[in-house]
Amino acid sequence: MEKMISGKTRLLALIGSPVGHSGSPQMYNYSFKKLGIDYVYVAFDVKEDKVKDALDAMRTFNMRGCNVTMPDKIAAAENVDELSPAARIIGAVNTIVNDEGVLKGYITDGEGFVNNLKDNGVDIKGKKMTICGGGGAATAIQVQCALDGIKEISIFNKNDAFFARTEETAEKIRKEVPSCVVNVFDIDDQAKLNEEIKDSDIFVNATIVGMKPLDDQSVVKDPSIFSKDQIVCDVVYNPVETKLIQEAKAQGCKTIGGKGMLLWQGVSAFKLYTGCDMPVDEVKEKFFS
Amino acid sequence: MEKMISGKTRLLALIGSPVGHSGSPQMYNYSFKKLGIDYVYVAFDVKEDKVKDALDAMRTFNMRGCNVTMPDKIAAAENVDELSPAARIIGAVNTIVNDEGVLKGYITDGEGFVNNLKDNGVDIKGKKMTICGGGGAATAIQVQCALDGIKEISIFNKNDAFFARTEETAEKIRKEVPSCVVNVFDIDDQAKLNEEIKDSDIFVNATIVGMKPLDDQSVVKDPSIFSKDQIVCDVVYNPVETKLIQEAKAQGCKTIGGKGMLLWQGVSAFKLYTGCDMPVDEVKEKFFS
Repeated sequence: MEKMISGKTRLLALIGSPVGHSGSPQMYNYSFKKLGIDYVYVAFDVKEDKVKDALDAMRTFNMRGCNVTMPDKIAAAENVDELSPAARIIGAVNTIVNDEGVLKGYITDGEGFVNNLKDNGVDIKGKKMTICGGGGAATAIQVQCALDGIKEISIFNKNDAFFARTEETAEKIRKEVPSCVVNVFDIDDQAKLNEEIKDSDIFVNATIVGMKPLDDQSVVKDPSIFSKDQIVCDVVYNPVETKLIQEAKAQGCKTIGGKGMLLWQGVSAFKLYTGCDMPVDEVKEKFFS
Repeated sequence: MEKMISGKTRLLALIGSPVGHSGSPQMYNYSFKKLGIDYVYVAFDVKEDKVKDALDAMRTFNMRGCNVTMPDKIAAAENVDELSPAARIIGAVNTIVNDEGVLKGYITDGEGFVNNLKDNGVDIKGKKMTICGGGGAATAIQVQCALDGIKEISIFNKNDAFFARTEETAEKIRKEVPSCVVNVFDIDDQAKLNEEIKDSDIFVNATIVGMKPLDDQSVVKDPSIFSKDQIVCDVVYNPVETKLIQEAKAQGCKTIGGKGMLLWQGVSAFKLYTGCDMPVDEVKEKFFS
């Protein structure tokens, strides 16, 4: 009989809300099985105000770790015991490792984004990027791209309570990577957004616009501004092809959906949980093709 | 590809300490899969003083339910929101069902014990039973057997802090089932234990003696007191054959180990979690043969 979950099997989970659509349980469970690691991975719908409770629950059940998705990434960073250097700069966490009751938070989203672009033949070095969003994933991408040598970043975000946080991120990047030009704009200024997109090599949506139930929407109202030589990326991976990706494809752009970033941030998290390399080729073929 | 755990799969668990040896994850996961129910079942090592935290964690993660094993059964009864009538009488819980945040505790151990004996061709009606133990499982067996028509029960327990609780159980049984004779004795009085065993149809060990790491011990020091026509039962199921069961078998007794009780208490719990009947014959063949 095949190896089954036993009384010794250790639990990992994705927390966030919503999580029902997530492909993470399949990706991790397949990889654990393939490598003979006695872990099992599920998803828990945890609202932002319950993140502290969820971390306590992780300790109570001696879970090996958690991935954290929207909208819990910032609250997770505030409630772990330790932060990796990147997670401290970014102020968000997408991976928590439980080492004998001590919860350490990491952020592998930025690495996942950059490695996904690499995997698609795109090198960000010396490029200009326009990006919408100021949440955990967005910030991680902005910081990682700056660290990895992007030339210029134009960030568009809602002018709400989080706008100041985006300004702070820009300031942090300017301090850490003085050679990188960073500007922050109001996402409701569509004229400015169009202007910056036209001037960019890469456009990224790192908001939840395009994800169900917002799947009939795109942050870019006029897709005709995209041109053939541009690269258009979406962090949203459900649906696999967001309205943004579909419209950019129709304009002849090279498009990169969010699934690959999910894969590559998972590869980094998998290494943190297990010390092992995820079987990337098989995982890609089974879950990302 | 076979059905895998997804972002929608709901978690159940066994809590107690130790739990690593438990066969429950295999039994439940096989049954969920067989019936196409999207649940997964793991085990968490939870010490008695962490039961309240574990129940909070159940709520946080919206788990469907928990089985509770030693030493957590009494603390679980004290921390659920509601109790079934049997769980209230017994003051212990081995099954918790989470209905939209309301945790209701049940005890299916007594039912499991009686149904296991039935499955082995033993009817307790009109019999005399000597039983060692005063914990959750022991109490559940005592109460259920009385309710199901046993004639006389001699309970042996350590004369420690829990002895008064055993006396209370006896008193409750006398009140609920006046026709049943119940007496409580000190388990250190081996002469009295031998005397009562000799006078009984059924002997039951419902202590943890015989379970690893106490697997070189038996509550009965002199197995020669057993006779051929007696039925000797152990609640301990790891090892499958305890020292008690081995010695009673050598005396020619009909012996019934704890695994069957685990199966039948699980059948009752499965029904509470899912509303469905566990595929008993397949589960028996796969995990209990």
